[in-house]
Amino acid sequence: MTTPYTDSPSQLDPALEKVVAAADAAATAFADTTPRQRASALLAVADALDAHADELVPLAAEETGLGTARLTGELKRTTVQLRLFADVVVDGSYLDVRIDRADDDYVLGVRPDLRRMKVPVGPVLNFAASNFPFAFSVAGGDTASALAAGCPVIVKAHPGHPRLSARTGEIVTAALSAAGMPAGVFAVIEGQDEGVAVLKDPRIRAAAFTGSVRAGRILADIAAGRPQPIPFYGELGSVNPVFVTEQALATRAEDVVRGFVGSVSGSAGQLCTKPGFVFVPEGHGLDDIIAAVVAESNAQLGEQRLLNPNITSGYCGQRDTVLAGEGVRTVVEGSVRVDDQGHGWTTPTVVAIPLSALRAQRRQLLEEAFGPFSVLVEVPAGTSYADVVTEFFTGSLTVTVQAADGEVSDKLRSLVRAATDVAGRVIYGGWPTGVAVTHAQQHGGPWPATTNDSSTSVGTAAIDRFLRAVAYQSLPQQLLPPAVRDDNPWSVPQAIDDAGSSRTWGSAANS
Amino acid sequence: MTTPYTDSPSQLDPALEKVVAAADAAATAFADTTPRQRASALLAVADALDAHADELVPLAAEETGLGTARLTGELKRTTVQLRLFADVVVDGSYLDVRIDRADDDYVLGVRPDLRRMKVPVGPVLNFAASNFPFAFSVAGGDTASALAAGCPVIVKAHPGHPRLSARTGEIVTAALSAAGMPAGVFAVIEGQDEGVAVLKDPRIRAAAFTGSVRAGRILADIAAGRPQPIPFYGELGSVNPVFVTEQALATRAEDVVRGFVGSVSGSAGQLCTKPGFVFVPEGHGLDDIIAAVVAESNAQLGEQRLLNPNITSGYCGQRDTVLAGEGVRTVVEGSVRVDDQGHGWTTPTVVAIPLSALRAQRRQLLEEAFGPFSVLVEVPAGTSYADVVTEFFTGSLTVTVQAADGEVSDKLRSLVRAATDVAGRVIYGGWPTGVAVTHAQQHGGPWPATTNDSSTSVGTAAIDRFLRAVAYQSLPQQLLPPAVRDDNPWSVPQAIDDAGSSRTWGSAANS
Repeated sequence: MTTPYTDSPSQLDPALEKVVAAADAAATAFADTTPRQRASALLAVADALDAHADELVPLAAEETGLGTARLTGELKRTTVQLRLFADVVVDGSYLDVRIDRADDDYVLGVRPDLRRMKVPVGPVLNFAASNFPFAFSVAGGDTASALAAGCPVIVKAHPGHPRLSARTGEIVTAALSAAGMPAGVFAVIEGQDEGVAVLKDPRIRAAAFTGSVRAGRILADIAAGRPQPIPFYGELGSVNPVFVTEQALATRAEDVVRGFVGSVSGSAGQLCTKPGFVFVPEGHGLDDIIAAVVAESNAQLGEQRLLNPNITSGYCGQRDTVLAGEGVRTVVEGSVRVDDQGHGWTTPTVVAIPLSALRAQRRQLLEEAFGPFSVLVEVPAGTSYADVVTEFFTGSLTVTVQAADGEVSDKLRSLVRAATDVAGRVIYGGWPTGVAVTHAQQHGGPWPATTNDSSTSVGTAAIDRFLRAVAYQSLPQQLLPPAVRDDNPWSVPQAIDDAGSSRTWGSAANS
Repeated sequence: MTTPYTDSPSQLDPALEKVVAAADAAATAFADTTPRQRASALLAVADALDAHADELVPLAAEETGLGTARLTGELKRTTVQLRLFADVVVDGSYLDVRIDRADDDYVLGVRPDLRRMKVPVGPVLNFAASNFPFAFSVAGGDTASALAAGCPVIVKAHPGHPRLSARTGEIVTAALSAAGMPAGVFAVIEGQDEGVAVLKDPRIRAAAFTGSVRAGRILADIAAGRPQPIPFYGELGSVNPVFVTEQALATRAEDVVRGFVGSVSGSAGQLCTKPGFVFVPEGHGLDDIIAAVVAESNAQLGEQRLLNPNITSGYCGQRDTVLAGEGVRTVVEGSVRVDDQGHGWTTPTVVAIPLSALRAQRRQLLEEAFGPFSVLVEVPAGTSYADVVTEFFTGSLTVTVQAADGEVSDKLRSLVRAATDVAGRVIYGGWPTGVAVTHAQQHGGPWPATTNDSSTSVGTAAIDRFLRAVAYQSLPQQLLPPAVRDDNPWSVPQAIDDAGSSRTWGSAANS
């Protein structure tokens, strides 16, 4: 890999310099691994993490306070994700190979042989999240997709689970090494200043982040302000509005409430897809059902620990702000207490507010409260939910529609259309938490859901954020990368445009 | 389209406000046009421009000083580009539709029905370039790809060809209107301050630019620094290094020189892909051939006019800097003179410098000189061209290899590999100027070639920069957009993952 501006001395301390230099040195060899080599390495990482589940899950539980069942499922999700990317790498569609054969009769004059494919961008820096100590942390989605793309990865560990991060890092590094990947292809670093220093290093070619709007914006600005700006994929906050129809209330009110309470209380509400604002028709009559279902849920879950003191204080602050808002009615007054060790403990709080009061206080109230808290917004009859979306939301990971089973109407069509403009995912009937790891997933959305809505942080399309394209013009077959050669040794999909194609341009549109 | 933060008053003067409000108002209706409607509109624009060639070409020639033959070809390229995008829109592959069917046996638990597609980002602002008054201006590549994507377009006209810009804008607007596209879908504005004001407007969702590193960086920083940051696709400067092998010199020296002089002198060297630095073995003996071929070229082309006074002064400045460099030898001393009207007139200048002298003065000398100027860099025997790429270049639109016919070697393989790390396009035997408009083209590259190397500004893949993805979860068919419905009324490619697929994950990688 190129080390640009080598006449500038490194700004890094010796330990970090070693990590970044090793990632840079590994970049070319790693990019040049075959798909099967890289896929085997991803599978080896998955196998190693699965093999250490009995060690990793308790460590994660201790450091984060999250439940064992949730963490066991999260680790499985993490290793399934690595396995899925192994298949993506071997399949090769992600390379988007396009071959235009030389064409003497091209409409614009002689066309040379042109072959385009995606290549890895180079070393990537990932800032780990606190709330998914496996799936969005050291071996999480951004690591899996960057390694799959062929980029060395440096993870800046989240301080919320330092021992788990270090141990996961050791396991991943050992597995990659045993799979024959070059040294330096993976590393974990610690510390906020250290993360910023590495983000500023010219050898880092892209960065990813999952966390708060505040921290994400600071880092995005640093990435954009570098002498050589780089893409920064920050997944930030989201309030995930839900819209409940009259017919949903009439036909399945309890079902809606059960789904709602489950989605708000799971993982103590510390999920970026937690439904923060639920728009319901005025006079919904849900208060008692909600109170009963939350009581049931509390009996089962008890108090739940928040991840760390930062999150506790942020949660308390925004919860207090909303509770003190004009016109806010408490539906369920959940608890928050801080124990001797500084851990926050909670049960869900649900409040209600008229739409007009939310409108009047939108700047204070329309923010993410990261914890088990949600706001019912009571909407007067005749209000268009599509207009509400357009008035109140600019970017959200999700927008959810709760309708009667199979309910379809022009109003719902308008709501889906408005949701498309602001969300990465539009859900019907389900709840936004529980993000499937699959091909068609989209986890992103316009600002402030992300710093860059051109990509996803969950699902196989995530590989695209760590790639750029290169075209090869008139190269002899022996000088071409395997993926764009005529003999196609990796059997990747190749979109071929033969000579003569330009004679029919415009006809598809006219036919 | 959403108008975010509507409680902030508009910062725009009334005329600009009208333009931006109209683009915003048109966004949803335009996004919802069918592929055939949008394709027909693109063809209508192409037809209208072709029909006005007799008016537009002379106007362009007068305002830019570029030759009529070149401009006629450029207009054809521009309209072919619109026609090609019409086919892309109808084909629908660009939507990257992925359908994961609901799967009760999914490896991570029940998987909902998920359908992902690309959607337009919303209103786009394009900053037009001076050097391609058709192909990178009002109706140029960024306009064609954004309209194809379904985004309203506001073009900030380049002051170098104001009357052509206004006239082109009228023709495009009329054609779109006659094709039934919503009012406000296209507009041309003028003025640097006006462009910046619109770039800062929250209703603008992406911007594109072709021009200098200095201006591009300023605008990229504004886009990144907005309260709601947006993607900014700037195509900036490039020095387009060329590497000539010993065998090329031995077998086809005159051919190489003819190609070189043609590439440097065409359009008075005012092309972003002009070969600025040509690395040749020491003792190449090319001086006399170059002098003779430049003399021939001058006899044919005469003095060529530079585009505008800014370019003239930038060209003179960098040319003077290089001519005054230590160890620089003049091979052909071309001319530069400024006439009574302030127009610069030039013939090509070629100089030579030892590699060691370039190394010592790289900060001053290794810059783009936008005009008919190129530097031969004389490389000692035994020097690795791959190492030269890595040492001197971080980002370039192109890297070119001039070898003997069909020459292949490990050294050339290393050179291609190093070039892949820094360039958007790697060329063998040809010259970088003359960028084919086609599917496999890549016009981009790491900084400073572009502000964002995740996309291309030429070729059909350019549509991707004006799209983002949305996933629809469990929606009834009647609420889904046409492209992701089972009945697939637009007949777009749909990548379908059936239930049960996760049972075999990881097996492709192991097979």
